[in-house]
Amino acid sequence: MVHTTPLPLQSIHMEDGLIRRMQQLVRDQVLPYQWRALHDEVEGVAKSHCVENFRIAAGDSTGEYYGMIFQDSDLYKWLEATAYCLAVSPDPELEAHADEACELIRRAQGSDGYLNTYYTVQEPQGRFTTLQQGHELYCAGHFFEAAAAYYTATGKRSILDTACRFADYLTRVFGDNEGQNHGYPGHQVVEVGLLRLYAVTGNAAYRDLAKHFIDIRGREPSYFAWEREQPGYKDIFHEDVLLEPTYAQTHARPVDQQVAVGHSVRALYMYAAMADLAALTEDPALTEACERLYRSLTQRRMYVTGAVGSTAVGESITTDYDLPNDSAYGESCASVALMMFARRMTILTGEGEYYDSVERAFFNQVLGGIALSGKAFYYVGALEIDPERCAANPGLRHVKPDRQKWFDVACCPTNIARTIMSIGGYAFGLSDGTLMVHIPMSCDIDHENVALSIRTGYPYGEKLAVTARRDGQRIALRWTDFAPILRLTVNGRETPLKREHGYVRLPTLMAGDVAEATYDLTPRMVSVHPSVACDVGKATVMRGPVVYCAEQADNGPGVGRLAMDSEARFTESLAFCGHEVVALRTQGYRAQWPNEAELYAFRPPVWQAAEVGLIPYALRNNRGTGEMRVFLNVLSCTDVHAK
Amino acid sequence: MVHTTPLPLQSIHMEDGLIRRMQQLVRDQVLPYQWRALHDEVEGVAKSHCVENFRIAAGDSTGEYYGMIFQDSDLYKWLEATAYCLAVSPDPELEAHADEACELIRRAQGSDGYLNTYYTVQEPQGRFTTLQQGHELYCAGHFFEAAAAYYTATGKRSILDTACRFADYLTRVFGDNEGQNHGYPGHQVVEVGLLRLYAVTGNAAYRDLAKHFIDIRGREPSYFAWEREQPGYKDIFHEDVLLEPTYAQTHARPVDQQVAVGHSVRALYMYAAMADLAALTEDPALTEACERLYRSLTQRRMYVTGAVGSTAVGESITTDYDLPNDSAYGESCASVALMMFARRMTILTGEGEYYDSVERAFFNQVLGGIALSGKAFYYVGALEIDPERCAANPGLRHVKPDRQKWFDVACCPTNIARTIMSIGGYAFGLSDGTLMVHIPMSCDIDHENVALSIRTGYPYGEKLAVTARRDGQRIALRWTDFAPILRLTVNGRETPLKREHGYVRLPTLMAGDVAEATYDLTPRMVSVHPSVACDVGKATVMRGPVVYCAEQADNGPGVGRLAMDSEARFTESLAFCGHEVVALRTQGYRAQWPNEAELYAFRPPVWQAAEVGLIPYALRNNRGTGEMRVFLNVLSCTDVHAK
Repeated sequence: MVHTTPLPLQSIHMEDGLIRRMQQLVRDQVLPYQWRALHDEVEGVAKSHCVENFRIAAGDSTGEYYGMIFQDSDLYKWLEATAYCLAVSPDPELEAHADEACELIRRAQGSDGYLNTYYTVQEPQGRFTTLQQGHELYCAGHFFEAAAAYYTATGKRSILDTACRFADYLTRVFGDNEGQNHGYPGHQVVEVGLLRLYAVTGNAAYRDLAKHFIDIRGREPSYFAWEREQPGYKDIFHEDVLLEPTYAQTHARPVDQQVAVGHSVRALYMYAAMADLAALTEDPALTEACERLYRSLTQRRMYVTGAVGSTAVGESITTDYDLPNDSAYGESCASVALMMFARRMTILTGEGEYYDSVERAFFNQVLGGIALSGKAFYYVGALEIDPERCAANPGLRHVKPDRQKWFDVACCPTNIARTIMSIGGYAFGLSDGTLMVHIPMSCDIDHENVALSIRTGYPYGEKLAVTARRDGQRIALRWTDFAPILRLTVNGRETPLKREHGYVRLPTLMAGDVAEATYDLTPRMVSVHPSVACDVGKATVMRGPVVYCAEQADNGPGVGRLAMDSEARFTESLAFCGHEVVALRTQGYRAQWPNEAELYAFRPPVWQAAEVGLIPYALRNNRGTGEMRVFLNVLSCTDVHAK
Repeated sequence: MVHTTPLPLQSIHMEDGLIRRMQQLVRDQVLPYQWRALHDEVEGVAKSHCVENFRIAAGDSTGEYYGMIFQDSDLYKWLEATAYCLAVSPDPELEAHADEACELIRRAQGSDGYLNTYYTVQEPQGRFTTLQQGHELYCAGHFFEAAAAYYTATGKRSILDTACRFADYLTRVFGDNEGQNHGYPGHQVVEVGLLRLYAVTGNAAYRDLAKHFIDIRGREPSYFAWEREQPGYKDIFHEDVLLEPTYAQTHARPVDQQVAVGHSVRALYMYAAMADLAALTEDPALTEACERLYRSLTQRRMYVTGAVGSTAVGESITTDYDLPNDSAYGESCASVALMMFARRMTILTGEGEYYDSVERAFFNQVLGGIALSGKAFYYVGALEIDPERCAANPGLRHVKPDRQKWFDVACCPTNIARTIMSIGGYAFGLSDGTLMVHIPMSCDIDHENVALSIRTGYPYGEKLAVTARRDGQRIALRWTDFAPILRLTVNGRETPLKREHGYVRLPTLMAGDVAEATYDLTPRMVSVHPSVACDVGKATVMRGPVVYCAEQADNGPGVGRLAMDSEARFTESLAFCGHEVVALRTQGYRAQWPNEAELYAFRPPVWQAAEVGLIPYALRNNRGTGEMRVFLNVLSCTDVHAK
């Protein structure tokens, strides 16, 4: 088992292509917009008060805390996203904002290292008395990630020191010893954060605390049950579902957990930490648990788009093959968390297959979470939207047909931003000196002995070219089922394709050598395991990792009446947004109904020939409110002619 | 326009057949069981306390009121069902219970005529201060129906007098005059009850109060909004949805309402009262409103089973073509209410078509609401059940895979009982001296000049025979699309079929004449308007008015994997319950999936030939817990062979 280690962001310089354009959007539009949102300077959107909470905690302002109890994390994720921006190119204005944020955070910290504006401002006596619902450790985790990222990007130690003071404080408060708090987070992520801090500082106490939180979770008697009986306990959210052991994955020890269950984001952040720990400790039982949970999720409980979470109640995963399209939850954060988990599985095992989930989640859910304007976001990733149903049926009230400008719970926008800005770190790894190209993207890479340029239109363009800028470049391209490599040449000469662990290794390139790969991006219909009853008789279309959908903007109202032909062929064109994004058309059918006054009839609808237009799911809802469907009915033409 | 008037129950003597057996079940099992449930004598079920509340109000017992604020109505509906039992055959034990109930109710009444155990026991100062949520008028309406039914059945005046005292009290309290309460019920049904009382007593004040409640509903400024601002107001249910104007149909004056919307039962009870009033007043605007609302409901917002209500939130109708199968609400009471409304539309207009809805609702939802044991009931009529999904997905938590023994809100069991026991009254009417057979059933009828015997296996048997027992019998049989009459003979001689207003008139029969009709009960696939997106590509099967479903008991697990052939033929057999009920089988398909580890694949499932077993939806869940679906995918065999 060869671990793959990520490449530092600083070594990857994006060149023209989808990723660079999305990163430019984040840099130019999203982060400035979010900075203003966090300062309550965007009109007509849900009030954040996030920065103001820090100001109050720092003594710069007075007033009451406002917002969700985990509001701090929004600033942390913004800071993390900004760090990734600064890692690859300077931006004095953004850096000034970030430094201001770092300083504000530092000044909001207690003298003992504690840092949480809600408890500092509102309930100083309540620290860690409501671990199940209090989110202090959740905020801490995001802070540690942000601090590590900002230090790594800028070399500025101040925010890292602030983080270490807080982490040091946590190592004193939490542990198995008498007098220590024996609890663990209600919302996991501190484990990932502590391990990130460990990676940057080398302080083993942080690693050990992360391991401790995973080790003691799910032990009987339940800490959370005990906590609820204590005098200082305060029920914050008043929702019974939050108290169920599966909700926060306390139903069993993580290493013993059998299925992916409960609140999606908690689950996936925890699995990510487990994979990190498994790599650090080489614990086979933990590795096996990670693989088991990954299979449970991706083979039975994940949407084709990389969305996770089948119910709005508790924002949770439900059961095997329960993947309703219309009422899907599919929180954007859950797909970010899936990327974190799956990426670590490849780091842990060296196997490329896990990156299928990274690509699914990134190219569909995460990129789709943000409008082309950069100023509106999806929290929920439903696979079927009928605005009229969403308005009238309260079972769909969580599904907003349009991206929203901001949220009361605003976890997703900044999570999407930090993921887009750090995608280079996801895309490339080093394994025993070989550059592993997990996700193709156009960039120049310079890191130790690696010096090469990649140019590709992936995921929309079939071609990829690697030019070595130094001798001895060893490169492996990931090989996937949805975008298999058809052909590989070096300096124009055909090269045999040999797959190992989900990668195709190129011959070692000398300076000036050019290797070219051709991906098979033929649009193909995708069927779902028939235990997912709502998708039987239906299919969606993927082209590479990109999932397509039919929108009202291309097809008129009644998108649910469309069907594709079982032998459908697709024609490609540039999508409406003018990017190199590919839209599809196919000759299909539309159900007609002769008598509008009949709701039920003893004859099937008449299937009339109709062109079906499809666009990438990630680009949906950029042309106004309308119907949208990922899965369409499939008919054979004989079927239609027979009627 | 010829009004059709119902036939008195006493004149209809059921003979062997489905209806008599269901009525025997109600008489022998259901009503004694419900009597015990109302007395809290059934172990292991939700406590009712209903009778005990009356005892406390009557001063026979002490203690606190317990149960929903409308718990009284359960006893009233039980009494009404019992009245219908006694109308057609004596049962001393049942009558003794009923007399006991009547006496208890009488003694729970205030000296001023007021009657409601919750307010009498718990909040004597709160009378009519919370009309929107207090349900006093709802209970009153069910009481008036019960009292009228019991008086009509037994000739005993005591309970009628109690009802009139209460109704007289209401006529003093409510009205347009100064000093009177200007409100109207939050949950409609008092209008129907008052009109029933008017029909029995001839007291025009009751009719006028019913008309008043309909007339002032929806007027601006809103009474409910005003009420909420008063000092005595108490929010009972703390649910925002209950305050929405559409919820209780106060968004417009009833005569101006355009679409069927809001809480299903409230809506349909109100429409029933509107139809009653339209018949009494011959008000064309009200008649038009009834027809408009009927069309809105049955052409766009009603399930094929006669279920109504697409969401559990507010137990409500939602919007056009929003008819999800898995999360359907379809409260049994709503289908009872639909029967009440549709029946009145035929009474109002003389047109038979409205009875399509009566039959849909009765043979599928209402009969299906009760287990063959008589001791378990469905509140919710979902059209698709996967027990594992229901358990794991909170969006389906209202869908209980199994019928329940009792409920905290126990409106449905007694509502089903009263409807089954009074179905004879629905089935037959008199129009200008002609016996209108709205729903065929085996019985002997003796009423004024009508003296005849009907024998039929309908809805499962194709034959119907009418034997005249007196000269000059004029008879019309309802003609429907789902069970058209193929052939009609009188004394063996073919007779031409002439349809008028949804009926086929027989030649006038002389004593001893036998007319025989043959219904076309060929099982046929039923498709749904393709704006109901979840049913595109699917169909269900109807045989006459009976809707079929596929159950796990016949098909094994994975009922969602089944498909019917587009040219399906069906073989018939006696169903498992040994009744003359018909089960169906057809040669269809089952989706196989070669690789269990794949959730998504670039090839469709393999459709293997498989027999599909179907049973009447009403008989579902009588063989243990399992999957069930009304709508199945439809494939053409060419479709399958091509793959």
